[in-house]
Amino acid sequence: MAKNITPRAKDYSQWYVDIVREAKLADYSPVKGCMVIRPNGYAMWESIQRQLDKMFKDTGHVNAYFPMLIPQSFMEKEAEHVEGFAMECAVVTHSGLEPDESGKKLKPKGKLEENYVLRPTSETVIWAMYKNWIQSYRDLPLLINQWANVYRWEMRTRLFLRTAEFLWQEGHTAHATAEEAVEETIRMLGVYRDFAENYMAMPVIPGLKSEGQKFPGAVNTYCIEAMMQDKKALQAGTSHFLGQNFAKAFDVQFQTDQNSLDYVWATSWGVSTRLIGAIIMTHSDDDGVVIPPRLAQWPVLLVPIARKEEERASVMAAIDRLTKELKDKGIGFRVDDRANVTPGFKFAEAELFGYPIRIELGPRDLAEGNCIATLRHSREKLTLPLAGTAQEVAGLLDRVQQELFDRAKAHQDANTHQVNSYSDFKEFIAADSGFALVHWAGDTADEKRVQEETKATLRVIPMHGEPEDGECMLTGKPSKQRVVFAKAY
Amino acid sequence: MAKNITPRAKDYSQWYVDIVREAKLADYSPVKGCMVIRPNGYAMWESIQRQLDKMFKDTGHVNAYFPMLIPQSFMEKEAEHVEGFAMECAVVTHSGLEPDESGKKLKPKGKLEENYVLRPTSETVIWAMYKNWIQSYRDLPLLINQWANVYRWEMRTRLFLRTAEFLWQEGHTAHATAEEAVEETIRMLGVYRDFAENYMAMPVIPGLKSEGQKFPGAVNTYCIEAMMQDKKALQAGTSHFLGQNFAKAFDVQFQTDQNSLDYVWATSWGVSTRLIGAIIMTHSDDDGVVIPPRLAQWPVLLVPIARKEEERASVMAAIDRLTKELKDKGIGFRVDDRANVTPGFKFAEAELFGYPIRIELGPRDLAEGNCIATLRHSREKLTLPLAGTAQEVAGLLDRVQQELFDRAKAHQDANTHQVNSYSDFKEFIAADSGFALVHWAGDTADEKRVQEETKATLRVIPMHGEPEDGECMLTGKPSKQRVVFAKAY
Repeated sequence: MAKNITPRAKDYSQWYVDIVREAKLADYSPVKGCMVIRPNGYAMWESIQRQLDKMFKDTGHVNAYFPMLIPQSFMEKEAEHVEGFAMECAVVTHSGLEPDESGKKLKPKGKLEENYVLRPTSETVIWAMYKNWIQSYRDLPLLINQWANVYRWEMRTRLFLRTAEFLWQEGHTAHATAEEAVEETIRMLGVYRDFAENYMAMPVIPGLKSEGQKFPGAVNTYCIEAMMQDKKALQAGTSHFLGQNFAKAFDVQFQTDQNSLDYVWATSWGVSTRLIGAIIMTHSDDDGVVIPPRLAQWPVLLVPIARKEEERASVMAAIDRLTKELKDKGIGFRVDDRANVTPGFKFAEAELFGYPIRIELGPRDLAEGNCIATLRHSREKLTLPLAGTAQEVAGLLDRVQQELFDRAKAHQDANTHQVNSYSDFKEFIAADSGFALVHWAGDTADEKRVQEETKATLRVIPMHGEPEDGECMLTGKPSKQRVVFAKAY
Repeated sequence: MAKNITPRAKDYSQWYVDIVREAKLADYSPVKGCMVIRPNGYAMWESIQRQLDKMFKDTGHVNAYFPMLIPQSFMEKEAEHVEGFAMECAVVTHSGLEPDESGKKLKPKGKLEENYVLRPTSETVIWAMYKNWIQSYRDLPLLINQWANVYRWEMRTRLFLRTAEFLWQEGHTAHATAEEAVEETIRMLGVYRDFAENYMAMPVIPGLKSEGQKFPGAVNTYCIEAMMQDKKALQAGTSHFLGQNFAKAFDVQFQTDQNSLDYVWATSWGVSTRLIGAIIMTHSDDDGVVIPPRLAQWPVLLVPIARKEEERASVMAAIDRLTKELKDKGIGFRVDDRANVTPGFKFAEAELFGYPIRIELGPRDLAEGNCIATLRHSREKLTLPLAGTAQEVAGLLDRVQQELFDRAKAHQDANTHQVNSYSDFKEFIAADSGFALVHWAGDTADEKRVQEETKATLRVIPMHGEPEDGECMLTGKPSKQRVVFAKAY
């Protein structure tokens, strides 16, 4: 188990791959660039889905499902969009297979009149439908979300973080005014921030992307940006104000309440299975995964310890009382009562899989009226009285959740620095020193130059940044606020 | 609304399409053969998923996710499987798009070395992974389910019932012995039956498919078969015992507890978004959708009625008390307090969308201490006292659920008949008289002949059929039990 995991200090990148595979979160597949999400990893996705779906519904959204195939001609309609995605589109050209000449293998048959692509994102097919569904301001706003798989051909893949196929949710909303659409864009960014910080225990910086980094087809793109343990940035969610670009591309006009015609205003926003990678790289350690309690499938693992058969009955009776208490409190748990596995093996596996709290209970503990709780993230051991244990556990889970956030926030703060000259910046980035807060007034070509020279990119223009007069580190032009540059996943 | 719905008596098939589109359950899409599942329809799928997922987990299964692209060569490995699915496979041949000669349109670029197909079902890619995950009997059983989209090119489509892309779940389990795998196959058929009867309120006949109707690659296929209002059969779920076919095709062997090597035994089982069509065609009427309470997104619709502004405050206060009571009881509801819409319009829409219970509350009701409940499925109106309303509603919802089942069961019983000769059978089927219980000992060729001559197929060999000696209606050969023949969707 842990002995198969490369230590972070030795090779962070290899540590990440090792942990994903050893903890059975995901596996490579025989399909180039695609992964298999194994049950341990999928359970994390289910926790993410459950909470986000609730937050989307609480903000008035409903779910729907649109086709995964998009007619090739749809990709031609929005100029920036096609430029952004054409190179990554998997293309369906045939509608069946038939035996080849040898009779032993297959070949495609039924060439299609029009090709389809696998959705890289669904703006085009959704706006083609919105054209039928939106006639008047009374049909607005339309607040629809989709949970789906998408496909973007990738050359350099990385489990969870960058794969050809991934799972995500994509919200697509339609509004009568620009103001409403912008409000929605920012509202959903707020939902993502709330989720990242209060459920993933991952501090993020909300803000705007630069022109060069925005979504193809958006007027502007908001994002939340997080710092991983190796000080690299990870884009954890994006929310786009699309203006009237897709309404114009798909001719979606509506009758306003003033009886005139106008194009509909749009947003889209999404997060994906990459969040699983973000959780791993924010909290985990050399012994395995660390999962924040609010997203753990089973926040508590109970390990009964009974070497002799005669001890077993009383220990299991105590475990039963404890699980009933946990159930009453709505705390998820699992009991590891496998007979032919040693406690040591169970403990190592519990650390690898990342149960936030492990509770051991043996005959001696029982005699003393206690059980032993171990917190996964800090290794802290606590002796808990067997009366009112569930209440204690509930408090501990809250504490763990908070400590994980605090630890990640301290790491982010400690590795975010103001940098004032381009030469200092190059040194800072070369030394992997984290987030550089710099003054910036360059254009997209300037950003490309910085990226080529340092591998760092403009991650985010913070929404809550301090106003401060300065000069762009590259061009010397005046700047009103610092932005974040960093190397990124 | 209802005036746009063709009556069932006039044209059942058109009624179905009208109701799906008027109730905004689904819509045709610009992608040939594919539908869009609209929010009202998707909410039904979410209810189905929530309950089934719980039942799968309660029987020890976990979820995972496998790639939607399957290497073409995988389809060549299991002979029956390829024969069953090759003709329906959408084929991906290129990895990107580029501008064509005109510079205005796109054309595929990056021809792939090996083609991929969109999964028509996932046995092949899953068993390719199981080869890596299963070494010993200690790795078994492996009980994995996947919620996913699948693709089978279809010429003649029908919203929810038959579309090229559809959503489903597919369970894929691996076992050490044939007995265990058969037990699992039958267990999951039982889960499907439980779900169909107790949640969808749809009586089903569980049993075996004939050789000619089984899943391509299965040793045998179990199914649940339901009768729609037009007396046609609908296959609502299947559970397959796959023997060692896929283990052999993908070379998945394991070390047994006797230290020998054996191929792994397999099952697979699935239900799809077609269940939404089954709910509609089992319960709905000429005015709209009827949804069984246990699968309704909102079992209760509350309609406050206040013509004058001064009535509004007291009516809304009573509605608030009522919703609080419903919430405490865990009963889902929605309040339709739109200001510029007449009660008549709201009632018609409530019937169209299928809220199981509609509750009206106006100033006069309030003065009398009552509210008026209308049951969607029977139009029964009840006056309920405003004290303890939620308790009454909970009881009513149970009653509605039961009455829907009873009504559907009575319909199935009334239209299931023993038929003893082939000439009677032809007459029975031509008159659309429902399920024919006939003696049968024919082979696949005989089944084909019956289908060509009558359009009826062998739907199911009932598991709980009465043993009865008889003679095959077509061949005269001896038979031990009656089977069900019918026209089907």
